[in-house]
Amino acid sequence: MLQGKVVVAQGGGPTAVINQSLAGVVIEARKYPEVERVYGAYHGVKGIINEDFMDLTQETTHNLEAVARTPSSALGSTRDKPDRAYCHQIFEVLRAHEISTFFYIGGNDSSDTLRIVAEEAHAADYPLKCIHIPKTVDNDLVVNDHCPGFPSAARFVASAFAGINADNFALPGVYLGVVMGRHAGFLTAAAALGRKYPDDGPHLIYMPEREFDVEQFLSDVKTTYDRHGRCVIAVSEGIHDGDGLPIVAKLAKQVEHDAHGNVQLSGTGALADLLCDQIREKLQIKRVRADTLGYMQRSFLGCVSDVDQREAREVGEKAVQYARWRDTSGSVIIQRTGFYSVEYHLVDLEEIAGKTRHMPDNFVNEAGTNVTDNYLLYLRPLLGSGLPDAFRLRNYPVDKILSRG
Amino acid sequence: MLQGKVVVAQGGGPTAVINQSLAGVVIEARKYPEVERVYGAYHGVKGIINEDFMDLTQETTHNLEAVARTPSSALGSTRDKPDRAYCHQIFEVLRAHEISTFFYIGGNDSSDTLRIVAEEAHAADYPLKCIHIPKTVDNDLVVNDHCPGFPSAARFVASAFAGINADNFALPGVYLGVVMGRHAGFLTAAAALGRKYPDDGPHLIYMPEREFDVEQFLSDVKTTYDRHGRCVIAVSEGIHDGDGLPIVAKLAKQVEHDAHGNVQLSGTGALADLLCDQIREKLQIKRVRADTLGYMQRSFLGCVSDVDQREAREVGEKAVQYARWRDTSGSVIIQRTGFYSVEYHLVDLEEIAGKTRHMPDNFVNEAGTNVTDNYLLYLRPLLGSGLPDAFRLRNYPVDKILSRG
Repeated sequence: MLQGKVVVAQGGGPTAVINQSLAGVVIEARKYPEVERVYGAYHGVKGIINEDFMDLTQETTHNLEAVARTPSSALGSTRDKPDRAYCHQIFEVLRAHEISTFFYIGGNDSSDTLRIVAEEAHAADYPLKCIHIPKTVDNDLVVNDHCPGFPSAARFVASAFAGINADNFALPGVYLGVVMGRHAGFLTAAAALGRKYPDDGPHLIYMPEREFDVEQFLSDVKTTYDRHGRCVIAVSEGIHDGDGLPIVAKLAKQVEHDAHGNVQLSGTGALADLLCDQIREKLQIKRVRADTLGYMQRSFLGCVSDVDQREAREVGEKAVQYARWRDTSGSVIIQRTGFYSVEYHLVDLEEIAGKTRHMPDNFVNEAGTNVTDNYLLYLRPLLGSGLPDAFRLRNYPVDKILSRG
Repeated sequence: MLQGKVVVAQGGGPTAVINQSLAGVVIEARKYPEVERVYGAYHGVKGIINEDFMDLTQETTHNLEAVARTPSSALGSTRDKPDRAYCHQIFEVLRAHEISTFFYIGGNDSSDTLRIVAEEAHAADYPLKCIHIPKTVDNDLVVNDHCPGFPSAARFVASAFAGINADNFALPGVYLGVVMGRHAGFLTAAAALGRKYPDDGPHLIYMPEREFDVEQFLSDVKTTYDRHGRCVIAVSEGIHDGDGLPIVAKLAKQVEHDAHGNVQLSGTGALADLLCDQIREKLQIKRVRADTLGYMQRSFLGCVSDVDQREAREVGEKAVQYARWRDTSGSVIIQRTGFYSVEYHLVDLEEIAGKTRHMPDNFVNEAGTNVTDNYLLYLRPLLGSGLPDAFRLRNYPVDKILSRG
């Protein structure tokens, strides 16, 4: 039963629509008279163990709707990856506050946290329901067809590369754009949706699902540049060699590590600059430019897929309905049914927790430098409506007079 | 008189609306029966000396309208900075093709090229009219209130920082975003328009109009971080020390130079990464992240100010009208008349050519770390309609139970 007090929290990296899921939970939960209070935990699980709760029962529906349209995590987020002792603390606080249901919006780490918290509650014979609501720009949750947050980030990446391709067409050279995604290449692959004309870039796309070989890369760039007189490249921040060593660590003398001991990939332009150096030095190409698409991919204000908005809202709403009508903890998942339609289901937390999904083989071409039509078909409906298109002039050449022949 | 054949070209860095000006020229020029042909030069002045013309008289109005809504320079651009000999060659080609009017959409370098070409034509007693149409994301043309291309780039920067501020609110730390602008800080200053709530970032904004002192910068960051527990910073790529040395050159061991011998500022993440290293090392702050906003600022597909679109179209249209009804070469300029309305005028090329406008003193605060209300009032109407707003939850705290006090 859904009753008494419930808590909602947001974990991991923000997305453009994670607040839609928050609004979905809060607005739906407040409909049930048995629900006394809807609490929000500040900064995810860290807020729970610090008992930093805010009472969302007192927030206006109007402001919740405005927050829903705002990117990033309105409750604040955390990078804490709780172990069992930490999860036990979470459970102790939830029990002290007599929480009946814990909604956690996050990725595979967050679902793993929920799994352990649910076990702790079960061991203590406390009736806590834990519902995981999917979210990740990486699109790497198993079982799900796709994850809320990914479509809007993909729309940003596609729009960025459509513009970058036009820019590179105007001022030719080599352009390299680094896209988020440590283990999964879905977001990098979205750059392909920026293409329209047959010779549009990105001409090369490198995803972490394939080994990255610097020599092969340079050869690919040379071939493309020789053919088109320009070359637009999309590279995943997570590209690595055959031993799994990140390319940024291979090329750099010095790299930063994050709190979990992983090489820092986001929030630095190092990979882009190092690959540019290689192109300049080895291929002797003069105009070589790079961008790291950075935090704008997940947080840019005003680039959002309406399909993503709708689904993110619905998984929040469904989470509350599952808590109301089902007797188990679980994770809300999205299944694709038509072209384009979806269904939501609740699956066991164990099915999602801590697992990483990768690009299926039929989404990547054989050379590992492009996506397939299967991927285009997969992604296009997710990008939503109103996506602008990039047009070119047609060429009606004028005869030369001075330099005939 | 406007008659016979006319040429239009695009120079310098692309913008989100430079094709509006192109469409304005072509569609307006094609209205006059005396105009036989409207040529486009491929890749600016380089296309002229190579006689790479396309006949825009044969392009459909429908496609011109679609191209107008597409970012970047549809005719291609160039970084060539013609000297007198080069300008003479331009003139020779224009004369050979019996061109009566040369419309050049570009910044202060382009207007200087036109000035010299006009002189060459005058010396040869050839009746060539040269009309400059303003364009630059840097907003650094003198006489103009603002330049087409800048408002859309400013909208991108403001939207990026509004989202980045929300992201940094969710996962606190230091965030630094590097914005385009070698000499003028207008675009970096636009980051201020991403703020809404009193403690929103960017908390610090550094523009090239003021000397940049690394020690003072670190002290500013520390003060902000100590107060807010986070710090969002907007930095112009062109920041320099008291001797005019770019900070990226000061901090780096090795820097790239562009074709004109200038230190390469765009298309690299070096400045951002170097400033982050300083913050990490000297202030011992753990979570320090940076982005370089990069080419997306001028080319992102789908981030455009409707005011900018309209004005870019009009300066193109006005250029043709001035060529029709006036007897002189010149530069079309934008003057602000109300809140918000503009007028267009034609001024002598000498007034614009080769000059650089900087932020006026009353747009920058005394400390040189923020903009003033004057700047907010100046920029807001240019950003156009439909700019989204970032909302926060209100805090209704819940009493602690376990950790009382």
